[in-house]
Amino acid sequence: MSNQFINIQFPDGKQQAFSKGVTLTDIAQAISPALRKKAIVGSVNGTIIDLTRPILEDTQISLYDANSKEGIQVIRHSTAHLLAQAIKRLYPDAKLGVGPVIENGFYYDIDIAHSLVPSDLQQIEKMMKQIVHENIQIQRKEVTRTEAQQLFAHDALKLELLEDIPEHEVVTVYEQGDFYDLCRGPHVPSTGKLQHYKLMNVSGAYWRGDSNNQMLQRIYGVAFASNKELEEYFVFLEEAEKRNHRKLGKELELFMFSEEAPGMPFYLANGQIIRNELESYLRHLQAKFDYQEVRTPLMMNQRLWEQSGHWDHYKENMYFTQVDEQSFALKPMNCPGHMLIFKNDLHSYRDLPIRMAEFGQVHRHEFSGALNGLLRVRTFCQDDAHIFVTPQQIEDEIALALKIIDEVYKAFGFQYDIELSTRPVDYMGDIELWNQAEEALENVLTNLGFPFTINEGDGAFYGPKIDIHIKDAIHRSHQCATVQLDFQLPEKFDLTYINEQNEKVRPVVIHRAVFGSIDRFLGILIEHFGGAFPTWLAPQQVKVIGVADNHQEYVQQVVDALQMEQIRVSIDDRQEKLGKKIREAQMKKIPYILVLGDKERDNQHVTVRKYGQQALIEKTLQQFIEEIKQEIQQKALSYKGD
Amino acid sequence: MSNQFINIQFPDGKQQAFSKGVTLTDIAQAISPALRKKAIVGSVNGTIIDLTRPILEDTQISLYDANSKEGIQVIRHSTAHLLAQAIKRLYPDAKLGVGPVIENGFYYDIDIAHSLVPSDLQQIEKMMKQIVHENIQIQRKEVTRTEAQQLFAHDALKLELLEDIPEHEVVTVYEQGDFYDLCRGPHVPSTGKLQHYKLMNVSGAYWRGDSNNQMLQRIYGVAFASNKELEEYFVFLEEAEKRNHRKLGKELELFMFSEEAPGMPFYLANGQIIRNELESYLRHLQAKFDYQEVRTPLMMNQRLWEQSGHWDHYKENMYFTQVDEQSFALKPMNCPGHMLIFKNDLHSYRDLPIRMAEFGQVHRHEFSGALNGLLRVRTFCQDDAHIFVTPQQIEDEIALALKIIDEVYKAFGFQYDIELSTRPVDYMGDIELWNQAEEALENVLTNLGFPFTINEGDGAFYGPKIDIHIKDAIHRSHQCATVQLDFQLPEKFDLTYINEQNEKVRPVVIHRAVFGSIDRFLGILIEHFGGAFPTWLAPQQVKVIGVADNHQEYVQQVVDALQMEQIRVSIDDRQEKLGKKIREAQMKKIPYILVLGDKERDNQHVTVRKYGQQALIEKTLQQFIEEIKQEIQQKALSYKGD
Repeated sequence: MSNQFINIQFPDGKQQAFSKGVTLTDIAQAISPALRKKAIVGSVNGTIIDLTRPILEDTQISLYDANSKEGIQVIRHSTAHLLAQAIKRLYPDAKLGVGPVIENGFYYDIDIAHSLVPSDLQQIEKMMKQIVHENIQIQRKEVTRTEAQQLFAHDALKLELLEDIPEHEVVTVYEQGDFYDLCRGPHVPSTGKLQHYKLMNVSGAYWRGDSNNQMLQRIYGVAFASNKELEEYFVFLEEAEKRNHRKLGKELELFMFSEEAPGMPFYLANGQIIRNELESYLRHLQAKFDYQEVRTPLMMNQRLWEQSGHWDHYKENMYFTQVDEQSFALKPMNCPGHMLIFKNDLHSYRDLPIRMAEFGQVHRHEFSGALNGLLRVRTFCQDDAHIFVTPQQIEDEIALALKIIDEVYKAFGFQYDIELSTRPVDYMGDIELWNQAEEALENVLTNLGFPFTINEGDGAFYGPKIDIHIKDAIHRSHQCATVQLDFQLPEKFDLTYINEQNEKVRPVVIHRAVFGSIDRFLGILIEHFGGAFPTWLAPQQVKVIGVADNHQEYVQQVVDALQMEQIRVSIDDRQEKLGKKIREAQMKKIPYILVLGDKERDNQHVTVRKYGQQALIEKTLQQFIEEIKQEIQQKALSYKGD
Repeated sequence: MSNQFINIQFPDGKQQAFSKGVTLTDIAQAISPALRKKAIVGSVNGTIIDLTRPILEDTQISLYDANSKEGIQVIRHSTAHLLAQAIKRLYPDAKLGVGPVIENGFYYDIDIAHSLVPSDLQQIEKMMKQIVHENIQIQRKEVTRTEAQQLFAHDALKLELLEDIPEHEVVTVYEQGDFYDLCRGPHVPSTGKLQHYKLMNVSGAYWRGDSNNQMLQRIYGVAFASNKELEEYFVFLEEAEKRNHRKLGKELELFMFSEEAPGMPFYLANGQIIRNELESYLRHLQAKFDYQEVRTPLMMNQRLWEQSGHWDHYKENMYFTQVDEQSFALKPMNCPGHMLIFKNDLHSYRDLPIRMAEFGQVHRHEFSGALNGLLRVRTFCQDDAHIFVTPQQIEDEIALALKIIDEVYKAFGFQYDIELSTRPVDYMGDIELWNQAEEALENVLTNLGFPFTINEGDGAFYGPKIDIHIKDAIHRSHQCATVQLDFQLPEKFDLTYINEQNEKVRPVVIHRAVFGSIDRFLGILIEHFGGAFPTWLAPQQVKVIGVADNHQEYVQQVVDALQMEQIRVSIDDRQEKLGKKIREAQMKKIPYILVLGDKERDNQHVTVRKYGQQALIEKTLQQFIEEIKQEIQQKALSYKGD
């Protein structure tokens, strides 16, 4: 090794000279042994590399520990190799497919004769622990294609992957003791760095995702930066499972699916009550802000979808039928119908803005494998609106749309993040208009004091947009609301209004959704509230239970009084023990249980048990009615996320 | 003529001897000259014949005047001949097609070179009057086919009709002076009997309704028993035209149609408000009676429709699409979806009745020529319900369904008639069950004190039914609600519940609709109210007009106070004259106009102009709000059919 020095620049701008051929490990050690211990991977001039690669020239470096995005990514990748090594030790004939990083962890596809069962995973994990204990060094080696072919001569899957590496690319192999894998890297320096992982399950997977290929076994695992994070993940999984909307949908009789209509929900009585409440809530809110609700047909002539551009960009996801020997499409979106309504009349600048809203049922094809309860369906009701504005009105109307979104999301206790997506490379239309529009959107967000991030180049080809991501009670993120500017649709449908100078000019269209899909939003709400809906949404709001048969008259009186106030109430008068009745009402997550005995009857009182609370509170019937009415009226969030 | 006598029996059973060969005219004259004068046509042994046909044997007779169904039918037919005779006099080259009786009148299809215009119809009517004045005798003649061919040698259309007369049938010709026509009759005895008619219009019509044939000119006319009836008919037409829902739909901006979706309504903001009110009204009413609202997909697998029987009986009217390479149908009815929901769970007799309701959007193909505004569409929202009952519950549940129908129809001020349709020839299922069911339906109607008529054999093949025909403000009849018993669907879907003996048995299904189609019901309502909806349904309930600019602050205060109470209110603050503003609000049939000036502002008063009333009434703002709230709450019918 020559005795030359190279200049290393740290992220804070400081510089230091090291011998040529120094590694990131050496540099970390030079700074502090603790840093060397924590370092997982590093970068030179922005490229992530192994800590052990020699550095040969002046360069900027960074070091990443397990808590960084870069660090945890590498840990997960190396844990996949660790898994593969353990498998090879236990099943020497195993052929290896691919082992990529995924959300929270990794998987590895393997080809072995034996069908793996949970106890096998335990054995594999034990072996992984052993290899970690051995703390084997992990080494990167550049090889020729011929060398690689020899190394993997017995593994047809790897040979196939080798063939796909582009000619100009260097082929690398990562070696750790008795194991080596064809891999671009980078990896942690030794197996001892891998500590906080768990194998999850095994499932079938076609080689390279193609159902014409052989079926492999895919082992899933998770890996985190610390044991605390790993444990939290399992708590999260348990919580998510308790809140799973498909499970709760069945238990609370909210909806069902049938093989006669895959991906198309059937709403049962309880689910339909919630849907109606959601729709009614937004309908009244929109009316307050001068939205006009319309209703357009579910299918329209194919030529309309050709005009709108859906035919070119979306036809693979559309359903078609024949009407009068012409092709009609079931609407995947409501926009073209609303454009026809706008065109049905002449408009002056005095008529704008026109805020046209629809609870529109749309149909969009999804592969059957992609369907997921209410979260991914083939038909859903969109709370769609199109706002027709003059260019001068863009800011005010975006602000109004955001105000409504804010009010709605707060009503459910959702935190949310805002993203502004700007002009993409393949944008259409006048660049001046784009600049004006993006500025308008930024201004609105800034003026309203909403923090937001910018996604450069991620807007739609027809205009920039604001996406809103809500966070549910267990911190999962869901994109729901959207506000999009559109300069193209008014062109395509030749929309005009007469401006103050008596000229025909184009309006701008704002697409806007609050819930997005009422069906998906309901799915999110079920999981957010864990099925324990706030009283205004709860399918059953009150369950009334008499202590004995001779209280039934008073029970009926209480029920009548509640029904007079439009409160959803039912009686449990089965011949069952009081305790069982209370337990079952709690299982159904009914907000209020009223227990009525002698004392309550004689005083015109009720004894109230609120969902999620142990206390039994006796009060007058009148007081209870006033309180629950007020709670419903205010859409109070009394017990979000129990 | 022989001197034999024959025995004539009158409708009251009395008998009298007349000479053989006597005519109905002779008999009428024998009873009284007044009766002879009034008689239009008669019957022998139930067969309608000319008054002038000789009677040759013992027989039962009846005589009909213009006020009978039989009489007016013959008058209309003879008026068609009168029209044809007038045309032949004015256009000797005219060829004659057919001239049948239709509702309220008749038409005649003719082939002449000249295109008829309204002034021509006046000339033709003048000639008809002349022929009536001539009081020409109308005579029936039996002819051979050869004689007929010679008579009509110059009229290709009549020759074609002649060929279609079955071999065994006697060919008859009716002659009146210079005119004769190939016709089965019967007719009035002379043209002087035809007095109260009017030609309406002329339009094109293909010979025999086949677009491959030549186009003829069709002249429409009406004829009535008296001049009063004729005049009333024109008043009715004028009223119907004023109320035409397509015309009002445009004027009041309720809905529109587009050639991109023929027969599929687009609801504009005003129309959608009414739809939402109707839906919300019925939803709350149904909830009160423990109906459970559900929502099922718009399309389902074709095999489901094969199972339900729709494939066999209804596929010509259904739209199909492809999903996952299988054929799916857009639902024409909601029944199969509701059957799947019932089957999704186990049921005990304790769970019944289950009242499952849906506002279900259905699609049914109609020929484009049959479409008629909202009254005949290709997609509509059905207020459908299926009630699953034990056989013992049939009566109570039918009664409850009728009670709801009665409450709804009364809310709109509709009178209605009830028809009970019983077992048809091609009935399916057990005759004992049919007898029980028909008896149940009769019992219910009788017990509720509803008058009804029985349509023997007119039930559905799957069960007997009750149809309700409403009468609108101008006495037109519309079939809307229906209550049908169904024994077949539970069989086809293998529906069961566990009865008290712990046996699996079949429930009975009751199909029920109140509005029928919300779209069609809205069309009927528009015409019923002539667009002047009761306040609870009116898209705009109040228009507020300030007398001068300095009243705008008070105008806004009044509007805010009304909006607080969810009243639909708008301001007219254009720079226009007060009178014009009031006129335009009246044109829009807005229930209340509030005019606000100095006096109103200073006293916190409003001056109220109610739609359809001239009076201006000043009252406190608070009083007005209380009154309109109460009116809306009670769904008051303040100005039905102005």
